[in-house]
Amino acid sequence: MKEFNIINKYFAPLSTKVPGAFSLKDDAAIINFPTGKKLVVTSDSCVEGIHFFKDDKPNLIAKKALRSALSDLAAKGGKPMGYMLSLALPPHINSAWLQSFSSGLKEDQDEFDINLIGGDTSKSNYELTVSITVLGTVSDGLYVPRSGALPGDRIYVTGTIGDSYYGLQILNGKKFDIGEDHRNYLIDRYHVPKPRLAIGRAIGEFAHASIDISDGLVADLGHICESSHQSAMLKLDFVPLSPAIKKLVDNSNEVYEKVITGGCDYELLFTVAPGDSEHVAFLAKRYNVEITHIGHIAPASDDDLAGKNYVKVVTSDGSAIKLKKNGYEHSW
Amino acid sequence: MKEFNIINKYFAPLSTKVPGAFSLKDDAAIINFPTGKKLVVTSDSCVEGIHFFKDDKPNLIAKKALRSALSDLAAKGGKPMGYMLSLALPPHINSAWLQSFSSGLKEDQDEFDINLIGGDTSKSNYELTVSITVLGTVSDGLYVPRSGALPGDRIYVTGTIGDSYYGLQILNGKKFDIGEDHRNYLIDRYHVPKPRLAIGRAIGEFAHASIDISDGLVADLGHICESSHQSAMLKLDFVPLSPAIKKLVDNSNEVYEKVITGGCDYELLFTVAPGDSEHVAFLAKRYNVEITHIGHIAPASDDDLAGKNYVKVVTSDGSAIKLKKNGYEHSW
Repeated sequence: MKEFNIINKYFAPLSTKVPGAFSLKDDAAIINFPTGKKLVVTSDSCVEGIHFFKDDKPNLIAKKALRSALSDLAAKGGKPMGYMLSLALPPHINSAWLQSFSSGLKEDQDEFDINLIGGDTSKSNYELTVSITVLGTVSDGLYVPRSGALPGDRIYVTGTIGDSYYGLQILNGKKFDIGEDHRNYLIDRYHVPKPRLAIGRAIGEFAHASIDISDGLVADLGHICESSHQSAMLKLDFVPLSPAIKKLVDNSNEVYEKVITGGCDYELLFTVAPGDSEHVAFLAKRYNVEITHIGHIAPASDDDLAGKNYVKVVTSDGSAIKLKKNGYEHSW
Repeated sequence: MKEFNIINKYFAPLSTKVPGAFSLKDDAAIINFPTGKKLVVTSDSCVEGIHFFKDDKPNLIAKKALRSALSDLAAKGGKPMGYMLSLALPPHINSAWLQSFSSGLKEDQDEFDINLIGGDTSKSNYELTVSITVLGTVSDGLYVPRSGALPGDRIYVTGTIGDSYYGLQILNGKKFDIGEDHRNYLIDRYHVPKPRLAIGRAIGEFAHASIDISDGLVADLGHICESSHQSAMLKLDFVPLSPAIKKLVDNSNEVYEKVITGGCDYELLFTVAPGDSEHVAFLAKRYNVEITHIGHIAPASDDDLAGKNYVKVVTSDGSAIKLKKNGYEHSW
């Protein structure tokens, strides 16, 4: 297949709603930008063998790539405007693959009200690389940085944590005796994250700090703390778990470690002043998204800052759990 | 090396002039967008073994990736605003490589007044992929589409054509007896294209159609014709050649074929009304860029459109040259 044919057949149809995309036939897209808004831009790449399996369904690869980029946009309260798609296609990519891949994008374009506006298609010798840059808008003053967390802030997280990590473990061949439905649920959560765009925008008026969880709950809470020069108290028992993960936790206490460090949840993690808790509860109901209070922000000591020891994880009885790089150890 | 360390050490310093890039520490960049402008967006990917050699100097890989994306922006009259960089880094990439790569970007940022605003860094198992998305602005009404060429328009091209193609041939081991200086010149033209940003913006007020030459002079002129529903008469002897290519042409008449079809020139190709020729001559002097009149636009016949036979190449005596897919044959 030639590059032009690939673009015309599979990708130009994804751009037809945007006149300035010129059906992907010009050198660049020309987009009207609304006055009074700021431009939000984020990129995310997915590489075969690193972020997805070579034999994953192409429509699911497409969805994961677009959704993980949209999740970053959600964390800043952005409204999707369009996206650029850069593909490096190795020899094993054929028409059926492209058909499935582009149909996955089409479904998600409809779901998230976003359109392809441009990109680049080239050959590669070995690996498939999908690189997506999402453009969005945010109203002046309504974007939430990582760096605004204040002592006393409540920490909230959307959805449930750890599903994607365990979905990946199952795909890697690990056996978990939790029933097929639960296993399929976890695999689905790995393949198809849910970017929390509506919540991300709705908290723009009052949240102090926000991030999407890609590196793991503890690591990303650490990023908020580092940027904000604060520390955080994370209550382990408060971390929201799906029924599938609850079943795993029943089987093994070690699961919690992986749940809070595993990564790729693509849920929103944010902090708000205690007085705004009711607003959060309202939004959870309004948008039908589980939002859970999992701890609070506290001042960081000089030792915390020097040692980059930002997040303290405690159990229900108040005892602290000391996390190591690849896990945690009990310190009491 | 960890992703965070790579970003902090090599790429965050490239973003310091843009407050909304947050030193690459947030989920997205937040950019003020000027009122009265349109957003221009273009992406370009370079893959190891396809667009560059594995052992190419990293600073030259960086420059080629950024400049080829900027060349697309130039074709639409865009002013650079910022760029997103997505890297997939295979195991053979080390600190020295990253140091050289980022220093190449830094030099070009200064030259083209553009800053890194975000991106993504991930591992790959085999190939290096560099994907760049350039954001720019263009004043309302001043961008030049591919589709605006009119019968009678003069066709112009910046710089010289065919250098990059022959630079690549030399790197591929082909021997050309033209002297070392000429060989080095051609290799340099392959590695370091010159995006024609100033000319691209200056012609915005009056040019009818514009494209940057990446697929080859004939192919890209064909793209203008196809989008504009016109045909073109290209005068072979008018095509501007560097002294190095002139020397090659002296040695072999077959060189012309490769010059006009070889690709990766990253020069601007545009059409203007005949009455604007003096304006073009003025700009060539004003910006010290060679701009050459190489033919004209003519109405396309139904046969031309049906057969996608848009570009007629003629020699100085008026005889036509029939181009084949991979070359040309004389038809007289």
